[in-house]
Amino acid sequence: MCASFSGSDPLLADLRAIVGDAYALPGEDAPELLTDQLNRYTGRARAVVRPRTTEEVAQVVRLLAGQRVPIVAQGGNTSLTGGATPTAEGSAVVLALTRLDRIRDIDLENDAMTLEAGVLLANAQEAAREAQRLFPLRLPSEGSCTIGGNLATNAGGTQVLRYGNTRALTLGIEVVTADGEIWDGLRALRKDNAGYDLRDLFIGSEGTLGIITAATLRLFPQPAAQRSAFLKFAAIEDVLALFDRAKKGFGSALTAFEIISGATYELVARRLPEQRLPFPAEFGEERWYALVELSDEESDDHARDALERVIGEAIEAGLVQDAVLPESLAQTRAIWELRETGLGSAQKRDGWNAKHDISLPISRIPHFIRSTGDALRQAFPGIRVFTHGHAGDGNLHYQVARPEDTGDDYWLTHETAVRTLVHRAVLAHNGSICAEHGVGALKAHTLPDYKPPLEIALMRRIKDVLDPQGILNPGKVLLA
Amino acid sequence: MCASFSGSDPLLADLRAIVGDAYALPGEDAPELLTDQLNRYTGRARAVVRPRTTEEVAQVVRLLAGQRVPIVAQGGNTSLTGGATPTAEGSAVVLALTRLDRIRDIDLENDAMTLEAGVLLANAQEAAREAQRLFPLRLPSEGSCTIGGNLATNAGGTQVLRYGNTRALTLGIEVVTADGEIWDGLRALRKDNAGYDLRDLFIGSEGTLGIITAATLRLFPQPAAQRSAFLKFAAIEDVLALFDRAKKGFGSALTAFEIISGATYELVARRLPEQRLPFPAEFGEERWYALVELSDEESDDHARDALERVIGEAIEAGLVQDAVLPESLAQTRAIWELRETGLGSAQKRDGWNAKHDISLPISRIPHFIRSTGDALRQAFPGIRVFTHGHAGDGNLHYQVARPEDTGDDYWLTHETAVRTLVHRAVLAHNGSICAEHGVGALKAHTLPDYKPPLEIALMRRIKDVLDPQGILNPGKVLLA
Repeated sequence: MCASFSGSDPLLADLRAIVGDAYALPGEDAPELLTDQLNRYTGRARAVVRPRTTEEVAQVVRLLAGQRVPIVAQGGNTSLTGGATPTAEGSAVVLALTRLDRIRDIDLENDAMTLEAGVLLANAQEAAREAQRLFPLRLPSEGSCTIGGNLATNAGGTQVLRYGNTRALTLGIEVVTADGEIWDGLRALRKDNAGYDLRDLFIGSEGTLGIITAATLRLFPQPAAQRSAFLKFAAIEDVLALFDRAKKGFGSALTAFEIISGATYELVARRLPEQRLPFPAEFGEERWYALVELSDEESDDHARDALERVIGEAIEAGLVQDAVLPESLAQTRAIWELRETGLGSAQKRDGWNAKHDISLPISRIPHFIRSTGDALRQAFPGIRVFTHGHAGDGNLHYQVARPEDTGDDYWLTHETAVRTLVHRAVLAHNGSICAEHGVGALKAHTLPDYKPPLEIALMRRIKDVLDPQGILNPGKVLLA
Repeated sequence: MCASFSGSDPLLADLRAIVGDAYALPGEDAPELLTDQLNRYTGRARAVVRPRTTEEVAQVVRLLAGQRVPIVAQGGNTSLTGGATPTAEGSAVVLALTRLDRIRDIDLENDAMTLEAGVLLANAQEAAREAQRLFPLRLPSEGSCTIGGNLATNAGGTQVLRYGNTRALTLGIEVVTADGEIWDGLRALRKDNAGYDLRDLFIGSEGTLGIITAATLRLFPQPAAQRSAFLKFAAIEDVLALFDRAKKGFGSALTAFEIISGATYELVARRLPEQRLPFPAEFGEERWYALVELSDEESDDHARDALERVIGEAIEAGLVQDAVLPESLAQTRAIWELRETGLGSAQKRDGWNAKHDISLPISRIPHFIRSTGDALRQAFPGIRVFTHGHAGDGNLHYQVARPEDTGDDYWLTHETAVRTLVHRAVLAHNGSICAEHGVGALKAHTLPDYKPPLEIALMRRIKDVLDPQGILNPGKVLLA
């Protein structure tokens, strides 16, 4: 069932009347918007439209809603769960928000800035920096993802420990509803209890309840200094014991606490020999590594003293086996590069793996890691687990790779079983199967297995009243 | 139309079958639950029921929903907007949650505690303290308000600047829905993007969408030391200039930034002579006062040094006219007592006043204060404005008192006009007419005047699907 619409599609003419000829195309003329960045989902679209203003978005939505045409809002198309690409069915219009790229206002006294959805995260960070402020959301994809996508997925990243997810950074939003009305919820208030929290309902709803077109975001003081450290541990329990000391010893200066498993570290050493490593890999040993970042409000000396004190004490107590405390920016960059690109590149060279973006109560991490790893290895002999993640947020990226002596066709028969085992273990540890990447297309069909039926029913009721025609991003989050 | 139900009301027998004879009474036998703490709203109730467990709450709700009986959930009955008392109509049952008072779990490694809705805020603080942690919500009513009420109203208080409102302190909730089902959303996760944010929809909905029966709350490290300072300013602009310096100079140690207008301070001197004041009142002069609190992660010396440095520099720059930096706990308590009880007591002795709980972008505070004060005095000669509030959150308690030569009957003819003037000014400054006290009964009828119609319509749609019979706390937030 492949709907086919040529350039003579009358809808295209109507879209062009709103946005201009150059900004509405048949779907097949914009293939880069139809495939997700992991090349896992390739969809089809009746048209691709790129409005320039909120008013144009509203007009486009009214036009499409009037004809019950599905709408897939898209920002930087960096979703890791296929959340921003259309399905294969082909009747949807991709509504690209990248031309809504204005910074509308920066209010320094109120520590707030108002941006349109299409502003790149890196540009939002830069606008804050130019105003002598910090916008703390930090993601590997910051050069290509947009604020609208960050909001649609309630993006997390590496600074959540201190500053929270995107939700926590947001004061107000502007939304185009499923029938093309504009809700101006762009409030710049720290306290506002006048009615229901619609803002947080739209945030994280992945374009299925409304289309976020702008947001008022919180700004923070810039830290006086940042320092990182890279640490080696003998066991995951020691990592968490250090995390406890770090929370006490660094207080709110602790902005990141990332972990890397020994197996993941070894994989980098094997597959990505050009990556500089702080310590030589120790093959076959149980090891854990952590990357700790301090953002100090006082001074670089203050940060160095705190790091040396807390880590020195932890080494003396036998919790930390070894530590690298970079003195130069280049050294610091190298350990962050390992975290932000090295791990991913090494895994890519190793072959496709089954990625799980999960979260757990922090207290359950050691048991989860040991018991789930054992269960996987028992059920799937030779299988390999590569774990890293934002341990300070209880968020693990738990990647399962096929046995070395198999090929990618291993996944044809094993993917579902592996995912089910991992997700059931997450559920048994009171965790979430969607920590920071959203549900998207990837997990829409499994979500009902990991949520109370009542919760799915409540979500469905809300979806039905905010998008009664079911035209917003169908096939994502909730299946029809 | 006064429904009358004697002790032979069959509903009472059914309620007693669920909760036990002692815990279901005719409404007239529990008058303390029918009047709000400000003595502004006295309602009537068919019955008052005090379940002990979530399961009992669910059974009670199923019983009442089956008969379309309205349900008014109540915690400590400390609402400042009549949000927790029944209306005069008399058919509702008050569902008191105070017997759900268990601390279910404290997970130190995960910095989370799970409490039932009826736990007193002071007891929650104490449970955290005993576990060497901080639960940072702090309100004047903490000895009598409950966690459930804090969640229902998304309570604010004096630590929002650093820790956020109740919403920001909450990881998960348990809710009994309008048809008596139990939603277990008690997750203890820092990242969870598996579906729509139902949690935040229930938080702040004032018992109109569901009944929160338990919550998992965030815990924080205890500060090493706390220090406060009381400052005197010549103008509101100087207060905000100091706030800017304080954010930079104190960083995340800045936990409170409270302000008091000169007129309010003078009123305390006149009406409450027993209250110790840091400075003598200066009658008739424009003055502002601020109470600054640091919660230092390092040490008491570190806090003192920071306070002395930042405030010393501000005095030299002419921003601050005078400062008191208490050295003893008793002195510190005295200035906080002025803030937390003195202002209210002095106003109470002065007579009833029209209280406004408003929030503004911080940058708009000076213009709002000057222009709204002028407009009030012009429209209502002799009227007096007493302002204090959480300036660091943009949250003002803006209290308007009748002219001194009038009596309380002044309000019979002027209350609506005064409130309208203030609220329109708030709207013109992009503020909120309900900052931290909620909408309740007090503002339910005016809310639609200060919200976009679309927002009210979206709220209405959500209310209609989560409480289709309209039995949850009728007359509050949204009118039928």
